[in-house]
Amino acid sequence: MRDDDGTLIDTDKAVWIQGRSCWLLATLYNTVEPRQEWLEGARLGYEFLRDKCFDANGKMYFHVDQTGNPIRIRRYFFSETFAVIAFAAYAKASGDQQAAEKAREIFGTCLEYATGERQMVPKFEDTRPSEGIGIPMIMINTAQQLRDTIGDERCDGAILGWIKEIEEKFVKDDIRCVMEQVAPDGSIIDHIDGRTLNPGHAIEGAWFILHEAMYRNNDAKLINLGCRMLDYMWERGWDEKYGGILYFRDVYNKPVQEYWQDMKFWWPQNETIIATLLAFLVTKDEKYAKMHEKIHEYAYTHFHDKENGEWFGYLHRDGRVSQSAKGNLFKGPFHLPRQEWYCWSILKNEIGE
Amino acid sequence: MRDDDGTLIDTDKAVWIQGRSCWLLATLYNTVEPRQEWLEGARLGYEFLRDKCFDANGKMYFHVDQTGNPIRIRRYFFSETFAVIAFAAYAKASGDQQAAEKAREIFGTCLEYATGERQMVPKFEDTRPSEGIGIPMIMINTAQQLRDTIGDERCDGAILGWIKEIEEKFVKDDIRCVMEQVAPDGSIIDHIDGRTLNPGHAIEGAWFILHEAMYRNNDAKLINLGCRMLDYMWERGWDEKYGGILYFRDVYNKPVQEYWQDMKFWWPQNETIIATLLAFLVTKDEKYAKMHEKIHEYAYTHFHDKENGEWFGYLHRDGRVSQSAKGNLFKGPFHLPRQEWYCWSILKNEIGE
Repeated sequence: MRDDDGTLIDTDKAVWIQGRSCWLLATLYNTVEPRQEWLEGARLGYEFLRDKCFDANGKMYFHVDQTGNPIRIRRYFFSETFAVIAFAAYAKASGDQQAAEKAREIFGTCLEYATGERQMVPKFEDTRPSEGIGIPMIMINTAQQLRDTIGDERCDGAILGWIKEIEEKFVKDDIRCVMEQVAPDGSIIDHIDGRTLNPGHAIEGAWFILHEAMYRNNDAKLINLGCRMLDYMWERGWDEKYGGILYFRDVYNKPVQEYWQDMKFWWPQNETIIATLLAFLVTKDEKYAKMHEKIHEYAYTHFHDKENGEWFGYLHRDGRVSQSAKGNLFKGPFHLPRQEWYCWSILKNEIGE
Repeated sequence: MRDDDGTLIDTDKAVWIQGRSCWLLATLYNTVEPRQEWLEGARLGYEFLRDKCFDANGKMYFHVDQTGNPIRIRRYFFSETFAVIAFAAYAKASGDQQAAEKAREIFGTCLEYATGERQMVPKFEDTRPSEGIGIPMIMINTAQQLRDTIGDERCDGAILGWIKEIEEKFVKDDIRCVMEQVAPDGSIIDHIDGRTLNPGHAIEGAWFILHEAMYRNNDAKLINLGCRMLDYMWERGWDEKYGGILYFRDVYNKPVQEYWQDMKFWWPQNETIIATLLAFLVTKDEKYAKMHEKIHEYAYTHFHDKENGEWFGYLHRDGRVSQSAKGNLFKGPFHLPRQEWYCWSILKNEIGE
């Protein structure tokens, strides 16, 4: 965890970021060029994750110290999903069969969590059950990455199932909105948490679906769904006053309880840069090219640190830097390099390099 | 939970706020004048808490729906501490012996949690044990309120014990700072969470100690301790650029991870208004009168809603309103009315009305 100029802030390690870094390095090795330093970095990440980041029951930690002693475990299984993509990409890069087996095994665990077959410790009582879009979204992307690297026959069907779940439960055409949470029957929960939208997150979901559309020979239904999601949440999230994607909105424009609701975080901008580019490529609709230009211009003007490189993570609504850390428990080498790598990849294919 | 103009945002109920509202109404009845509507309101709060806010094991919920169905339980025992002061103040107002017994019983539970005799579900693994100032602080105030209303012989000794703990573990004279978290031996944990300071919270702790100093005939050691805490955290928390008390700071001025670190919340201002007034009254040092004027002027200029009354809860660093809710899961009728009531009480005693 490092400050803007690279100064060390904390020697602790975030397990999400171990997985994401390992995935990134292995993916660059697999897709850009086979640099040994990338493979070596991915190997170190793989081994640290494998040896230090699982508890005795096989559940992954969220936060460990420098040498891997556990600090915190959380109820969710996002550490596991990032381990799947890390292990799968590393297995492809290295040919390590143990890594491939582990990727498939942890993917199986994630499937069990996602279907409810394996229970997470519940955060809420049973009075008002809800489901989040986060689980089908992360599962789509995890399965896509697994499929692209070492392959797994469970992926294709599961991806379509989660996309169906998102379309049927979370996408509300009548009010032009993608909900972050809904009741199990897909209805809107008219309480503060249930009304809270996360436009950058829904837009990330939109491009996972557009990616699937491309994979399936530009499937028209999936293109339509992804573009609707992007359209709706651009309308909800784009800040007409200062530019950029706002963090949270209320579906009925009531006050949002989360304190950072009107801040600009780095990652919603990255996800919107990808989604608008993909939407343009699959539709050739100039509207998306304009949206892409707008978000790209905003993001690179405001987030890029011209002095020390990389991006700041946290801006106030008006674009002033709120705090200077380049890396912490939540910000690591993922959304920004993934955006640059992914956009490079799809443009390269497009141009037919 | 209501918007700035009183519009209902959510029918759910925060258990903390049920306790705090009940305490406030009963306290006004006990100390300002015996208005029946206040007693009646306190009774409704007492009965709702007693009948709806405990689970089958006697642990209190954090969040329930309008009729009291449970939404969320949290690991901490703050709901319990607010129930103690609510039940004790209501018992005094109404003469209800059951309420008095329940207040003492729940206080016993809180003592067990505070000493570790009763275990909370741990948030962190055992690698890096830490203690927060929040527990001794809330226990001091809970015991003070219990003592002032229905009395309890456990209070006097316990209060002095917690003050000793704060002085020995959390107050760092060498760096002029009050830590929010420390290792069990009182040392600073040099990681992001361990370095994070909450100046408004420490200043609230300062006035709990100054209150105890007054109660003990202006005990010089306690006055000195409370004033040191106030001095240190005013230096850390007062925003020289825009005024007001900032939410979080890092002890070594590194970036703070919590996103709202430079916002101005209502309650740190309330606590600082009380602390500076008390410090002036017990020391007659003009420095505290000036600090009191500064914070009072800042707070009433920026937080007070001139159109609809009451205070906004959440301002950006520069004083602009971030969101308009007057009440939500965390903001209720507590810090502001407690400040006005407490300052009125001590000034009334001072003037000898």
